[in-house]
Amino acid sequence: MRDHAIIIGVAGGSASGKTSIAAKVYEAFKGKHRVSILKQDDYYKDQSDKPMSERVKTNYDHPLAFDTDLLVEHLKMLKNKETVEKPIYDYTQHTRSKKTEIIKNRDVIILEGIFVLAEERVREQCDILVYVDTEADIRFIRRLKRDIQERGRSLESVCEQYLNTVKPMHDQFIEPSKKYAHIIIPRGGENVVAIDLLITKIRSIIE
Amino acid sequence: MRDHAIIIGVAGGSASGKTSIAAKVYEAFKGKHRVSILKQDDYYKDQSDKPMSERVKTNYDHPLAFDTDLLVEHLKMLKNKETVEKPIYDYTQHTRSKKTEIIKNRDVIILEGIFVLAEERVREQCDILVYVDTEADIRFIRRLKRDIQERGRSLESVCEQYLNTVKPMHDQFIEPSKKYAHIIIPRGGENVVAIDLLITKIRSIIE
Repeated sequence: MRDHAIIIGVAGGSASGKTSIAAKVYEAFKGKHRVSILKQDDYYKDQSDKPMSERVKTNYDHPLAFDTDLLVEHLKMLKNKETVEKPIYDYTQHTRSKKTEIIKNRDVIILEGIFVLAEERVREQCDILVYVDTEADIRFIRRLKRDIQERGRSLESVCEQYLNTVKPMHDQFIEPSKKYAHIIIPRGGENVVAIDLLITKIRSIIE
Repeated sequence: MRDHAIIIGVAGGSASGKTSIAAKVYEAFKGKHRVSILKQDDYYKDQSDKPMSERVKTNYDHPLAFDTDLLVEHLKMLKNKETVEKPIYDYTQHTRSKKTEIIKNRDVIILEGIFVLAEERVREQCDILVYVDTEADIRFIRRLKRDIQERGRSLESVCEQYLNTVKPMHDQFIEPSKKYAHIIIPRGGENVVAIDLLITKIRSIIE
């Protein structure tokens, strides 16, 4: 057992494949209780004090939607092997769920989210910074299919949201954060060679 | 000992830091006789049948300057653990040197050169494809300093060569080959986190 946890930050645009990469890396260590995934999305701000009419206006693609203070605090605790009670976000209620998840005594934390490299205070807590770089048109097509098939959204609304918030926020905050990456992984979840490099590194940390 | 060698291809533009990365990775295994570096530059075509007046006109930044047949043959042999007599290029004579270097029974070959990802037949021999991505202005400044300090070139001639051959060949052949990479390493030789990922992977192959 290590004294301190290693934190691997995985950023990238919407539908770049970062969640898929984090999941495939995690899969290699499942059930061993040494590695956990932390989703930046679970650290969206608690909005329970706001009326629903306000909550639905949340721009989830802006850094200010996140409770970065809490995320940074939890990362520091996890690094020191302290137990963390991680929030869970409830998208149907547009606020933090009453449920939480206990994370304790992990050797490696995979932190995954669009602004992991964009937020300086978050970046500083990471030992390895990964940017998943997938072309914008491919990302849009993945998002379009996902939002229509899994979320029952209309073609019109997906395009509108993409052009009005996803793309401008990507260009302003996410794409420029690529320069902080230690490694850039092209294409996303199908890139088995890159995924294997991360798995091999984690195995060397754990063993 | 493995039955087959693993080949790691490291490409990137002139002065991107690929040689430095290959050297730092190699350094971690020096003296163990398990890893060797292969420089694509040593596979420049033999020009001993041409007069010097012809040889000096060689465009070293074009894929046709390389004896890719021989390189591919050697990569296949090294993969099968056969002994290779690697050529050494003599830049003062603009042709292959009479000296050679014996490489035998290595577990890992680091193949480093500007067209490693651009040449399909070379790429096919590589198990891990790395592209070292350093901004063009930074690469030019490094090249300028190196050519003036180490090679006694004039400012004028460095700029002229860069604009006439280095940059157009980069834009035509090298930059487009980035899309084949499994991982992209930004900044080059100072990126210790990325270098450590490669060292860790090689260690896992050898041990």
